[in-house]
Amino acid sequence: MSTFKNFFKVKNIEEVLSLESLFPQLGTEEIPLLNASGRVLASDIISDADLPGFDRSTMDGFAVVASSTFGASDGSPAFLNIKGTVPMGEEPDFSIRPGEAARMPTGGMLPEGADSVIMIELTEAIDDDSIEIYKSVAPGNDIIKRGEDYKAGDTIISAGCRLRPQDVGLLAAFGQDPVSVFKQPVVGIISTGDEIVPVNKNPGSAEVRDTNTYSLAGFVKDAGAIPVTFGIAKDNFDELLKMCSKAIEETDMVILSGGSSVGTRDFTIEVLSSLPESEILVHGISISPGKPTILAKTRGKAVWGLPGHVVSSMIVFKVIVRPFIEHIGGVSLTNRKQQWTKAKMTRNISSAQGRIDCIRVKLSRTNRTLFAEPVLGKSGLINTMVKADGIVMVDINSEGIEEGAEVDVIQI
Amino acid sequence: MSTFKNFFKVKNIEEVLSLESLFPQLGTEEIPLLNASGRVLASDIISDADLPGFDRSTMDGFAVVASSTFGASDGSPAFLNIKGTVPMGEEPDFSIRPGEAARMPTGGMLPEGADSVIMIELTEAIDDDSIEIYKSVAPGNDIIKRGEDYKAGDTIISAGCRLRPQDVGLLAAFGQDPVSVFKQPVVGIISTGDEIVPVNKNPGSAEVRDTNTYSLAGFVKDAGAIPVTFGIAKDNFDELLKMCSKAIEETDMVILSGGSSVGTRDFTIEVLSSLPESEILVHGISISPGKPTILAKTRGKAVWGLPGHVVSSMIVFKVIVRPFIEHIGGVSLTNRKQQWTKAKMTRNISSAQGRIDCIRVKLSRTNRTLFAEPVLGKSGLINTMVKADGIVMVDINSEGIEEGAEVDVIQI
Repeated sequence: MSTFKNFFKVKNIEEVLSLESLFPQLGTEEIPLLNASGRVLASDIISDADLPGFDRSTMDGFAVVASSTFGASDGSPAFLNIKGTVPMGEEPDFSIRPGEAARMPTGGMLPEGADSVIMIELTEAIDDDSIEIYKSVAPGNDIIKRGEDYKAGDTIISAGCRLRPQDVGLLAAFGQDPVSVFKQPVVGIISTGDEIVPVNKNPGSAEVRDTNTYSLAGFVKDAGAIPVTFGIAKDNFDELLKMCSKAIEETDMVILSGGSSVGTRDFTIEVLSSLPESEILVHGISISPGKPTILAKTRGKAVWGLPGHVVSSMIVFKVIVRPFIEHIGGVSLTNRKQQWTKAKMTRNISSAQGRIDCIRVKLSRTNRTLFAEPVLGKSGLINTMVKADGIVMVDINSEGIEEGAEVDVIQI
Repeated sequence: MSTFKNFFKVKNIEEVLSLESLFPQLGTEEIPLLNASGRVLASDIISDADLPGFDRSTMDGFAVVASSTFGASDGSPAFLNIKGTVPMGEEPDFSIRPGEAARMPTGGMLPEGADSVIMIELTEAIDDDSIEIYKSVAPGNDIIKRGEDYKAGDTIISAGCRLRPQDVGLLAAFGQDPVSVFKQPVVGIISTGDEIVPVNKNPGSAEVRDTNTYSLAGFVKDAGAIPVTFGIAKDNFDELLKMCSKAIEETDMVILSGGSSVGTRDFTIEVLSSLPESEILVHGISISPGKPTILAKTRGKAVWGLPGHVVSSMIVFKVIVRPFIEHIGGVSLTNRKQQWTKAKMTRNISSAQGRIDCIRVKLSRTNRTLFAEPVLGKSGLINTMVKADGIVMVDINSEGIEEGAEVDVIQI
């Protein structure tokens, strides 16, 4: 079956990323709002009321008609009669007119007639019923007007937003509990290779423990999805086929890793091609490390064959697999946020043209400048990813990056 | 009890942050390695073996003695006898000498005598037993040497590290399952205020729904801790005292929010002072928004009184409370990572001296430059936090930031 490799031309990253639209979004579910941080909103939320629902004081002080204070100063204070005290959380049972004031707690509702608040520090009590005011205030001073935060009918958050804590707070303000969100993608993880042993086993002299299952599970979780591990498949057609079938049955996406050698790569392709309703979409991507990546569409689900080298599998996940997880999980394009930062390269890096080179970098801060120091090393060495804080992608047409150049760093 | 406010001088942020050492770190627990991403490592991990444990091929090709290839070229290939095939995951049962080669899969163990691998593309099979080689290779070519990733006895990860997916992969490589981590801090959340109603209730004409419980719960989770909500306490001494006592009993840290008015602030102080084994450490911080923040140490636990304004409580959490959660959760100082980025301010911002001003900003990218656009607005307006992507802290001695200046943005 080694002829498979001839059917495919290496694709560039953009071509691969554009294939996400071939995979359908997951369904939605209702969850308690308290658990909604990090989840993806399923539909636009329209406000059903003004927020706040009333003119509200932002200071301790006195509600007044602003015009009563015009011209007031230390030398010529305005004199106002206290009409009453506004209790927290209750509608005042009185109104005020020019020349009158009401005692006002922060957050309280302004009485009818008042258009502003003067903070207590700018006033002096004459007796229990009257105050002097030493400064003039403008209408709207130290209050939040009804509807100033949101107006009834506003779209407050759009579908496809990955909810941050402040977004959840906003949904709380509008009573959106429970809230409808996209289901979290369930992602199956399979390691392959005759040399791979489980973590709790002592490797024989030519064996290594399974690391990819553990690092990929963490990255899947970071992408807002739920990892499900299926263990290690030996390089055996029937075993891998069986494990893949089970994983595709039970999850929304499957990630195989391993099989980086030419022989086992063909073997992964062979298994993916033998699955029912399966089509190979990608066989090779112009990225380094990570070129021998495979993407199949099987029963409508994405099945990935990632390289076995520890660094390659992580980089391909971060740069290519993660957007597909976000897509099926409902995250809209404007809400796809890798954590980026800007940094200056500490030295020259050369790069081959015709592919995207993913350089691992360690970030360090000197005074107010962030520097990216390349972490060089083979893509089989996990220490390079442990030392690194980020990835810098060198453009496909670039011969490299010069020392001191400002670069975009994907934080890892 | 309003005299309390006179006992305290407003502290600057550094003074407050230095108090974290007054609070003990939590204990540790063993958990399955698969769940360890995001958790905090409890003790240094020392490697007990070389990684990899054997000289390993990184290519499909032939294991050789490099000197046998010296001088080889297209015009004058080296001729080598194939001694055998190395099976994946098994120790080769033969060795090779100069003039000999072994078929080698990626990831396989080099036979004794071999010091390098030549990739299959640089060779040509003559017959089943011999190949020609068209390029000379150096010793070490296309292999990972035993111990090249880590050597036995290396400290591979230090205590206090918040484990990233790649760190968990590394622990897997060394069989560290289960792994010992710090317990996750359990953080109690209480909203206070007579005007606050639960999310599932329709607010009366002078009431608002409880938003702080929901936004703070999300931020607590983002800080690697477990939020536990206790509901809303009315401005009633006995009710708040009882709820605080229960929360302190059941959690590792307590966050109250609300009580921003002078009267209710004194009231929170009064309750915190009345608790057994309780001491007020901070009453006022030179930060805006967020000045009226309270910190008490009660039975060895931090109890926070955050301002009620939605924006103030979130900013104080991000800048001040979060480091305390990380401290009790065992995160070492070098592992305290806010997500930062660099951006250029889109316009002038003025600032009062004598306090840190926290400006909300919206990030946008034009070509390769990231811009920070100030989001202005009162600290009672949640829409300003929903629009914002970050916070820029203006130095205590600065009068502001000029348009075009490069700033550090804490991503939110």
